[in-house]
Amino acid sequence: MNILVVIRILAFVVFIIGCFMTIPMIIAVVGDESRAIKAFIVTIGAIVFLSGTFLALLRKRRAKLLSTRDGFLFVTFSWILASLFGALPFWLSGAIPAYADAFFETASGFSTTGATILANPEGLPSSLLFWRSLTHWLGGMGIVVLTVAILPLLGVGGMQLIQAETPGPTVDKISPRIAETAKKLWMVYIGLTAIQTALLMAGGMCLFDALTHSFGTLATGGFSTRNASVGAFNSSYIDWVITVFMVLSGINFTLHYRLFTGEPEFLLKNTEMKTYLAIFFISTALIAVSLYGTVYGSAADALRYAGFQSASIVTTTGFATADYERWPFFAQSILFILMFVGGCAGSTGGGIKVIRLVILFKQAVNEMKHLLHPRGVFVLQIGGNPVARNVAYAVSGFFFLYIAMLLAVTFIVAISGHDILTAVTTALTTLGNIGPGFGLVGPTENFGFFSTPVKWVLSFAMLIGRLELYTVLVLFTPVFWRR
Amino acid sequence: MNILVVIRILAFVVFIIGCFMTIPMIIAVVGDESRAIKAFIVTIGAIVFLSGTFLALLRKRRAKLLSTRDGFLFVTFSWILASLFGALPFWLSGAIPAYADAFFETASGFSTTGATILANPEGLPSSLLFWRSLTHWLGGMGIVVLTVAILPLLGVGGMQLIQAETPGPTVDKISPRIAETAKKLWMVYIGLTAIQTALLMAGGMCLFDALTHSFGTLATGGFSTRNASVGAFNSSYIDWVITVFMVLSGINFTLHYRLFTGEPEFLLKNTEMKTYLAIFFISTALIAVSLYGTVYGSAADALRYAGFQSASIVTTTGFATADYERWPFFAQSILFILMFVGGCAGSTGGGIKVIRLVILFKQAVNEMKHLLHPRGVFVLQIGGNPVARNVAYAVSGFFFLYIAMLLAVTFIVAISGHDILTAVTTALTTLGNIGPGFGLVGPTENFGFFSTPVKWVLSFAMLIGRLELYTVLVLFTPVFWRR
Repeated sequence: MNILVVIRILAFVVFIIGCFMTIPMIIAVVGDESRAIKAFIVTIGAIVFLSGTFLALLRKRRAKLLSTRDGFLFVTFSWILASLFGALPFWLSGAIPAYADAFFETASGFSTTGATILANPEGLPSSLLFWRSLTHWLGGMGIVVLTVAILPLLGVGGMQLIQAETPGPTVDKISPRIAETAKKLWMVYIGLTAIQTALLMAGGMCLFDALTHSFGTLATGGFSTRNASVGAFNSSYIDWVITVFMVLSGINFTLHYRLFTGEPEFLLKNTEMKTYLAIFFISTALIAVSLYGTVYGSAADALRYAGFQSASIVTTTGFATADYERWPFFAQSILFILMFVGGCAGSTGGGIKVIRLVILFKQAVNEMKHLLHPRGVFVLQIGGNPVARNVAYAVSGFFFLYIAMLLAVTFIVAISGHDILTAVTTALTTLGNIGPGFGLVGPTENFGFFSTPVKWVLSFAMLIGRLELYTVLVLFTPVFWRR
Repeated sequence: MNILVVIRILAFVVFIIGCFMTIPMIIAVVGDESRAIKAFIVTIGAIVFLSGTFLALLRKRRAKLLSTRDGFLFVTFSWILASLFGALPFWLSGAIPAYADAFFETASGFSTTGATILANPEGLPSSLLFWRSLTHWLGGMGIVVLTVAILPLLGVGGMQLIQAETPGPTVDKISPRIAETAKKLWMVYIGLTAIQTALLMAGGMCLFDALTHSFGTLATGGFSTRNASVGAFNSSYIDWVITVFMVLSGINFTLHYRLFTGEPEFLLKNTEMKTYLAIFFISTALIAVSLYGTVYGSAADALRYAGFQSASIVTTTGFATADYERWPFFAQSILFILMFVGGCAGSTGGGIKVIRLVILFKQAVNEMKHLLHPRGVFVLQIGGNPVARNVAYAVSGFFFLYIAMLLAVTFIVAISGHDILTAVTTALTTLGNIGPGFGLVGPTENFGFFSTPVKWVLSFAMLIGRLELYTVLVLFTPVFWRR
């Protein structure tokens, strides 16, 4: 391991976070939010001092190629440090008095979860609200590059599963080409953010709201600047714009890139995207049928709310335009099941991810064929391309770990004195980076009531879920630290 | 496929069921339960006529060796036909007026689930109560032989996973030796039933109660003759006897056999049993700590109720001595997690089974080692013996199917208008053959309120879960019916 090199890059990541913090600082200055100004100045000062010191001290080390182990350490601690430093403005300004709460909020931001401890986000100064949404956007940026370019090199994540099918702008080893890949993907990411912002403004949103909600959408995050989430705008147009962009954000960003480069044929034959869209459309249709006549009188409204909430949950965004806990159980159960799905690999969406479920399903079918023809050879295929056995193996392991972690978090929430439904959906919604769940963490509630230890556990669950479990859990194996 | 041979054996199975039905018929005669007498006579008459006809018609066919496909058909339809005919006495006697209800109750019996639609079992004539418990016992007998001797030949179930470790009385092809295996295992099964019955009678139970509760225990079923389940006897001694026998019934019966043949060394080195017992003891200890001082004033009571309920859930029996929905959430969440565990392979316990969870866990750990050493070879081992890759593959497939079926049943229950917690635990408790769950299907409730279509689905879920999913689901693949 090259711990010192890892520290150097981490210092650089923290420095970048500090740079982005200047934007909300300017907002604070313009808005004359005195306590926020002080908090940002202190935080940025601390970041510049600390990262500067580390970068200077470690300057002379030539950045050697990072090993796989270094990669795991780097990725995990990027998110942890980003959350640790990112939480400071909330805490130092006194807007969120407890540091555990501020860390939760920031981890929720950088992990693009969108679970909040704030009962009244509207009470926050604009600068902090902006910073809160910006953590989503930065987290999403990190995730896109991470899943498309870095995790495949570490053998983690969904992207290597579909490389045969989508020869996207991926790289084959940690090299300067990562920067190229990152640039291309970020162009797409920034472009989509800009388009959505413009469309939202065209619908009557102010720049601030349009930008922060676009951040929350592109990152499939879910923080809103309003207490009533997107529902506060009460606009069919805005709902549909956000619905469409949530769905887009749940799609592999290399596919968007292909679209921009004029190679749409990659989209048409992409099994994961087709399955993902099918899940979205079917869920929307079923929920709309269930809402029409029971909750909403008009078919257009039923479709609008069904589409928005399906997209919000399946992409793991977590915006809300309605209190779905008052919907018929039919609609609720579909949302509950969608919580197990998640977006496409290579998107900013969290959860188990569609491609993994496709592979698991095909594996189960193959297993049945195998039972009937024990000597037959059944190759697992996605879109006509064979999936290597060890990839399917990794997916199985992931699925088990996901369910096991789900039960572990459920247990921890329950032992702190909460009912089973709240516990289960809290686990689902943090580990899957969704945001709202059912019960005490429903769409109109917040996570503020949890005890401090539980908040730390949930913050950790959000980060583990975001980093595809393995990336973090591998640090807890003795074999990682051996030699 | 040798459909006619399959039909012939099925006719024989139904005939055996008819033979066993003479016992409750005698009870009905002795107790002068006129409507039950009539119902048993008509049912037995129908069984003798139908099975006799088929056996006579197909007499001349030499029973060829059954193919794998035949095996799947035979096993699935054994349980379906047993439930179809077994339900007749309940229905014809008018004790359970709706046939769907009677089928549910009987499928619950034969699948050793123990979920009941009866609000007032004590209102049933003794003969029918006895038959109800006897379906458990027969179902358990079937399962022991099925999982130890038949399913491994079909490539399904947990037993082949541990053959290396426990070279039990298993056979290697469908041959008369199955009869030998069956006899040995049944000796153990009958022996344990007799011992438990004697011990319960020593505690003051009457023969009828002792026998029916032993049936429910050995089969890890859970039907009680009392409305308040085992709690009705209000005896610490009885609770402990049943706790011990539930735990024993969740252990692989080939291990019990080894104990009787004086080879206890097989038990000591059995990974699955050790894990299973560890789960039981740890759960009991944790729940006892949570109950002591909050629900029960004495440590002995806390331990007694904790042990009973842990054993009841982990073995998937489903007896109750307390309304655990009033326990602290800490205790509830442990029970909830235990619902995902189940007994050992080769026992009468249902659920996912301990050995599968052990394999999945080790597989996930191996996967992490693999991430750190991509060129390393990590062999999955259980108790020092390697587990074949395709076995681990089958386990992964099973786990995915289990969770998928869980969500499917959850969905169906929810769309019929029930809350998510009820829906989830109804799915868990039927598919895992446990019995009670949480919410509307809690330990003091019953399944009577579900709509008829849902009852059919749940009956089906109980049978699918009991037959290790694959056995039934394979019948729904096109490849099964091809050629």
